[in-house]
Amino acid sequence: MCIMKYDVLIIGGGPAGIVTATTAKKFYPAKSVAIIKKEETSLVPCGIPYIFKTLGSVEADVMPTKPAENLGIEFIIDEVEDVDVKAKVVRTKGGKSISYEKLVFATGSTPVMPRIEGVEKKGVFTVSKNIEELRKLHEAVKKAEKVVIVGGGFIGVEVGEQIAKAGKKFTMVEMMDQLLPAAFDKEFARIAEEELKKLGVEVYLNSTVKRITGNSSVEAVELADGRKIEADVVIMSVGYRPNIELAKKAGLRISIGNRIWTDEYGRTSEKDVFAVGDCSEEKDFFTRETSRVMLASTATFEARIVGANLYSLKVVRVNKGTVGVFSTFVGDVALGAAGLTEEMAKKEGFEVVAGYGESLNRHLASIPGAAKTKVKLIFAKESGVILGGQVTGRYEVGEMVNQIAMAIQNNLTASEIDTLQIGTHPLLTSAPTTPPVILAAEDALRKM
Amino acid sequence: MCIMKYDVLIIGGGPAGIVTATTAKKFYPAKSVAIIKKEETSLVPCGIPYIFKTLGSVEADVMPTKPAENLGIEFIIDEVEDVDVKAKVVRTKGGKSISYEKLVFATGSTPVMPRIEGVEKKGVFTVSKNIEELRKLHEAVKKAEKVVIVGGGFIGVEVGEQIAKAGKKFTMVEMMDQLLPAAFDKEFARIAEEELKKLGVEVYLNSTVKRITGNSSVEAVELADGRKIEADVVIMSVGYRPNIELAKKAGLRISIGNRIWTDEYGRTSEKDVFAVGDCSEEKDFFTRETSRVMLASTATFEARIVGANLYSLKVVRVNKGTVGVFSTFVGDVALGAAGLTEEMAKKEGFEVVAGYGESLNRHLASIPGAAKTKVKLIFAKESGVILGGQVTGRYEVGEMVNQIAMAIQNNLTASEIDTLQIGTHPLLTSAPTTPPVILAAEDALRKM
Repeated sequence: MCIMKYDVLIIGGGPAGIVTATTAKKFYPAKSVAIIKKEETSLVPCGIPYIFKTLGSVEADVMPTKPAENLGIEFIIDEVEDVDVKAKVVRTKGGKSISYEKLVFATGSTPVMPRIEGVEKKGVFTVSKNIEELRKLHEAVKKAEKVVIVGGGFIGVEVGEQIAKAGKKFTMVEMMDQLLPAAFDKEFARIAEEELKKLGVEVYLNSTVKRITGNSSVEAVELADGRKIEADVVIMSVGYRPNIELAKKAGLRISIGNRIWTDEYGRTSEKDVFAVGDCSEEKDFFTRETSRVMLASTATFEARIVGANLYSLKVVRVNKGTVGVFSTFVGDVALGAAGLTEEMAKKEGFEVVAGYGESLNRHLASIPGAAKTKVKLIFAKESGVILGGQVTGRYEVGEMVNQIAMAIQNNLTASEIDTLQIGTHPLLTSAPTTPPVILAAEDALRKM
Repeated sequence: MCIMKYDVLIIGGGPAGIVTATTAKKFYPAKSVAIIKKEETSLVPCGIPYIFKTLGSVEADVMPTKPAENLGIEFIIDEVEDVDVKAKVVRTKGGKSISYEKLVFATGSTPVMPRIEGVEKKGVFTVSKNIEELRKLHEAVKKAEKVVIVGGGFIGVEVGEQIAKAGKKFTMVEMMDQLLPAAFDKEFARIAEEELKKLGVEVYLNSTVKRITGNSSVEAVELADGRKIEADVVIMSVGYRPNIELAKKAGLRISIGNRIWTDEYGRTSEKDVFAVGDCSEEKDFFTRETSRVMLASTATFEARIVGANLYSLKVVRVNKGTVGVFSTFVGDVALGAAGLTEEMAKKEGFEVVAGYGESLNRHLASIPGAAKTKVKLIFAKESGVILGGQVTGRYEVGEMVNQIAMAIQNNLTASEIDTLQIGTHPLLTSAPTTPPVILAAEDALRKM
């Protein structure tokens, strides 16, 4: 029997695991760091929708391990069977025993297959992060003529957009009365919907699936109202479930949100055992309830804190919950959102004021790349503190929404955003006379 | 004799004047607002360098007045001769007397023609904001074969880049040992220099001009070390001087920085008289000395405060000085800077730690638009507070530098930036594993 020892052992090779490892190695260069993961090859999770068109293949989305290996991080391809948190030893299916000083769960999440009649039929898939399963989906989509996706969240919208761009007949089914309800108010969700429609996508809102019909292979999706949508391939994109079985078996405390319980520094209920990413608990920034966000950017944010703080608290995390920060690209339009939507804020009981700003993303319409950009900011009425924001435009949206996220994390008020000093340039930004984020704050200020 | 009356009268139709007017009209819709300006047609000042190539003509850079007119703002084309601040009346060259409740100086700045032998010769220009003068420069450059620009600040670099892209032989002469010294440290300035050289520009650093030679027309620029650079057109781009003559005549207090003295709300030494933009005094964010920044984005930031606060202090400006926030595009590379450079910070007496972050601006190199991006952040050593930042990359730079500017204005520390929650997307931003702003903060943190 082989016995191995590492100072830092990380279970899982997704973004959370990789960033925990690289951060640990940067802060504690003398410590040995290893990642144990099931598959040789991991994918860039946010790149998965783009295998269908922009990247063109599963292989183009492989996450490079070289940068981590260059830092001296070792990769072990094996599956952990159980963890003895008292003896500080991990046992693998491959028969290895690996002892550790610090153990990190970065076990991620798995797509949920909903319990609907017929989901076992050939041609029904989820959007897995496993390369083999994804290859099967990719092959099936290539051969398909008609694809239906169930679920209008980010994965559904992005996969759908790419499959439509690849020239397939594509239909989207969403239970709610809008797409992307976790991030956008209806007026912004409608922009994404319009872009999908321009690509020929049929969008069914307020629609639930009753069953998948067909013999051994899928033939159609039957909705609760009796309508049938023909399909060669059906993709179920209704959410992801945190992978917590191993942690449960090891006796770690599980949160009411069904994730591994952690404190602000990713420390679990067991000494020297940490958890990061989709599998670990996070609190919402505004309500302190368990956050439902599962994003690689959130996972890596946690991983930077855990990696730096494995042996002592080097990076102080001033008690801040999770802010969901999203961006995406649909058709010709980029959309971004951070914090609460107006609807979510009202549901939480906030009295809100929304402000709007619209302009070009360049100084003049004649400048290359010029396009419309629109910002909505949501503020708490009495205090004027920002609760959330939504943006649409082009490539600048990715960093604009990060500005809004920074404003949220620092509790800026409408007045502070209105008096913000920014830089502008004809080829890069809106004109100094019409910066949309500032116009939105000013608009809200006048309504308060 | 014609006597007119406006509630709000603004002298000057540049960005500062326009935004003061539009903001005033939004906050005080019942008030009459007029802008008095010398020329019918104003230009977008930051667009001026781009008339030489990207925009292609002076006409393409005309600032639209429609949005202001639609708000009910009147334009008066005339020149103010003097102001009686006691009687609250303005008298114009056109013979008008205009009385006001609130008067705003937004008189801007004029390029400085340095006192060098030969600058009176035909073919020597400054970069004026006046449309007629700019047309003359544009015509002269079109006919020229060899153009020399004196001064390697933003205007010099941007005009030079465009003239080189238009296919002219172009030479740049700068006194200092780097380009863009007001915004960038040498390592970033060198990136701009290399981009200019790729376009065939010759760059003379550490070089001062002794005289301009030629008969009535310019033939060459002679440097202090005796070298001669042949030229058909010489552009002097050594700085701008605030237009304060009218304010002086009216008896307003002038600051030691030779601008119109104002308090935090743009109020001058005379009741109901305000000043905004290049002509008005601002204090530096870090030192409280007179700021030397002259940017349209700074001017419009001031204008939003003055416009909202003309009749009562509606928008609170929490005592913050001016932060210079710059962005530009040279060759194939965008560059941005905010706050102090490392060199400036050291000169001011700060003990500094600089952190660096490098990555792609997309998740994978195979994604359209992928390019290298690099960030430098400068922090005060003991407190960890951010003092400045510099970025290079592509179109995302404009909004990335605005994030850094927000961090500066909120005194964020390296630890706070390292634990910042952001959003990422394959087509829009760096990967969640390598966001360059956060990597730079982490790098600095490890060095502290």
